[in-house]
Amino acid sequence: MKMKRWHLVCLSLGLTAACFIAYYPSRRLVSQTASHCSHLGPLSVSEFDTRLATLAQTLTTPNASAYIAEPGASGLYYANVSNSHWHLSERPLLLIVDASARLRVLTPKFEGTRARLLPIPFEVEWVEWAEDENPYEQIPEIEGTVFVDGSIRHFIVDGLQSAFPKATVSAAPVEIRQLRERKSEGELALLRCANEATLMSIRRVHKQLHVGIRESDARTLAARTLADAGLKDGGCLTLFGENAALPHGSGTDRRLRPDDFALFDCTASLHGYWSDVTRTVALPRGVSTIPSTHLQIWNAVRTAQRIAFETARAGVLAKRVDEAPRLFFSLAGYAKYFTHRLGHGIGLEVHEDPYLNGASEVVIQTGHTFSDEPGVYIEGQVGVRLEDCFYIAHDGSAVYLTAGVGGTASSPWNP
Amino acid sequence: MKMKRWHLVCLSLGLTAACFIAYYPSRRLVSQTASHCSHLGPLSVSEFDTRLATLAQTLTTPNASAYIAEPGASGLYYANVSNSHWHLSERPLLLIVDASARLRVLTPKFEGTRARLLPIPFEVEWVEWAEDENPYEQIPEIEGTVFVDGSIRHFIVDGLQSAFPKATVSAAPVEIRQLRERKSEGELALLRCANEATLMSIRRVHKQLHVGIRESDARTLAARTLADAGLKDGGCLTLFGENAALPHGSGTDRRLRPDDFALFDCTASLHGYWSDVTRTVALPRGVSTIPSTHLQIWNAVRTAQRIAFETARAGVLAKRVDEAPRLFFSLAGYAKYFTHRLGHGIGLEVHEDPYLNGASEVVIQTGHTFSDEPGVYIEGQVGVRLEDCFYIAHDGSAVYLTAGVGGTASSPWNP
Repeated sequence: MKMKRWHLVCLSLGLTAACFIAYYPSRRLVSQTASHCSHLGPLSVSEFDTRLATLAQTLTTPNASAYIAEPGASGLYYANVSNSHWHLSERPLLLIVDASARLRVLTPKFEGTRARLLPIPFEVEWVEWAEDENPYEQIPEIEGTVFVDGSIRHFIVDGLQSAFPKATVSAAPVEIRQLRERKSEGELALLRCANEATLMSIRRVHKQLHVGIRESDARTLAARTLADAGLKDGGCLTLFGENAALPHGSGTDRRLRPDDFALFDCTASLHGYWSDVTRTVALPRGVSTIPSTHLQIWNAVRTAQRIAFETARAGVLAKRVDEAPRLFFSLAGYAKYFTHRLGHGIGLEVHEDPYLNGASEVVIQTGHTFSDEPGVYIEGQVGVRLEDCFYIAHDGSAVYLTAGVGGTASSPWNP
Repeated sequence: MKMKRWHLVCLSLGLTAACFIAYYPSRRLVSQTASHCSHLGPLSVSEFDTRLATLAQTLTTPNASAYIAEPGASGLYYANVSNSHWHLSERPLLLIVDASARLRVLTPKFEGTRARLLPIPFEVEWVEWAEDENPYEQIPEIEGTVFVDGSIRHFIVDGLQSAFPKATVSAAPVEIRQLRERKSEGELALLRCANEATLMSIRRVHKQLHVGIRESDARTLAARTLADAGLKDGGCLTLFGENAALPHGSGTDRRLRPDDFALFDCTASLHGYWSDVTRTVALPRGVSTIPSTHLQIWNAVRTAQRIAFETARAGVLAKRVDEAPRLFFSLAGYAKYFTHRLGHGIGLEVHEDPYLNGASEVVIQTGHTFSDEPGVYIEGQVGVRLEDCFYIAHDGSAVYLTAGVGGTASSPWNP
């Protein structure tokens, strides 16, 4: 609202003054974005205690002796160790949780000092392997069933199984995979703010688009804007015109034309938790010459996004949320151009379980988070995708993670 | 030699002129570095044909029906598809080679068009899976034994095994892993040039070091110098003084002091093939006040590097090459400070099989490539590492990949 008021004052003062004053709202927006999430810190130690205790509890039912992960999203969840903290190499560094909620870290011995600098927020037991030792044989008390994180590299599973031929090393079952799926209040706060700041960044970039800007320049601008917003590892898939018809296309560094849409699919992280927001936008009215057929597509995608959102609630099968917008697209004649699933889970990974696709029998539960991202892609012509993530609140309803800053787009000019 | 002549002319002209003219050799060095590898292109299609044919031949003996890899080093080796070309996501894209040397690519259907833009240099057969299908069940003719690349993510092995319960999905045996180990002439040419250009870059950076420069600034300078040299994804671990005592330490952004060594451990790639060169250098004589005990360590590491190199030849056990410099360090009193293995294979990965460690029973063969990187690390005090890679030539002898630009360092002032 404040921004609109500034504009009015500005117009009554004439062109030169107007331009000067008109700068203020934009600068205010920068600083608002930069400070938007500064009140949020990383998760507390007690949150990690709870996670380990829950995992240990989950191990006891199938009588498993341990759960093993590499640095990565699951490593981050249980021990605050991502593969940015510790680069995955041929030398295994493993995080091993046993049924009494104890965390052991298997580390290369010569890197023991550096390993102890990892930001693990609680006491752990260190197990070291020397360069001429079999790493896996240094792990004590591996027996019976041992579960591994699905993203672990196969040579490690192979090494564990060879070192412990009597144990059964297998992928963690759904009961364990589910632990990461339902988000806590602390996690939701981070996800909410990351998604809000990302959407604010896209809106800032949208205001700076002009005829002739290259995809690469807009991509650079978008990445810088996300960084300015205090987010980490931010970046946008940036596709103009027909380039957007390949959902994950890499573009041709096309220059933006008046009749083009510009698609920004942006991700960034806040204390490990990711955003994922897509907007398909147009140049300002008066400049933009988007064909009406493309506008129709935009509106159909907008409707499909709303249908999916209204279908999603606790107790519903995930596949229904994929099915509902697809049925609408069938009626509108776009079904064959909606080539991918409706959405994915989001948290410590941009894409994570559970997924919203046509085969998913997952029952949606409170604390689940999903992207809602229908799209229409006509190769050689046009691509439109709109994406906001949502979570399932305590009352079972879906709430957009971008709701705090106005939520979904209302037109290609109001993203 | 030309560089030395310039220096002589320069001195006879007095200080101002000397400084101007002294710039020339440095500029020449830049342009020499930039063009150093420009005569080398990517590997030929026939090299890929040979690889597929050899792999197919290797599959027949254990009667295996297929070999499966994700985009990555092995994907690059057999199909020219790395995980830079195709980001690994939860949606499998698999490269499947069968016993008749045919390559099938399993791809998400909605990304079929983008997948067909991958730089695979020969005809392949495409197998697509839709978003609501089980990806693995779309693969035809999986039966009997199926080998997977060791770096494949476990959930894919799990998915393959579940989709084909009668097949045995297991890690590729040593016969297959070995195919990538012995380098062709074309591969050696790329490795040689990448390692030469990397060493030239380190020498350029060394000339620009000064008292007070920060680790981060030197690291940025080094990365830029590697990029200027025409290499990709170049970077250096850059550690000053006692920070170098953690072999893979991340540093504290220390400022360089006159009594510090500066350690640069640099990697970069040329058409997919990596360099790995480490130099521990000092500020110019007259400025440098390196303690004599640290110089003794430098000289001991230099000797250890030479001992390893002279031990390595075709027919020798890999562990002997690790053992020989370690014996010398024992006599010199540094054994307990040499905490890691002597070296690793290098090619499409910076670290790859085979390894030079105390447990390796691998017999060294012609075409093998290794790093030779002894080090002495005394925590809180000093760290010295010297690293050049070498290959085993047709006559069975070791030849440094940096030999074309003078090879190993002769002192901390002549890297």
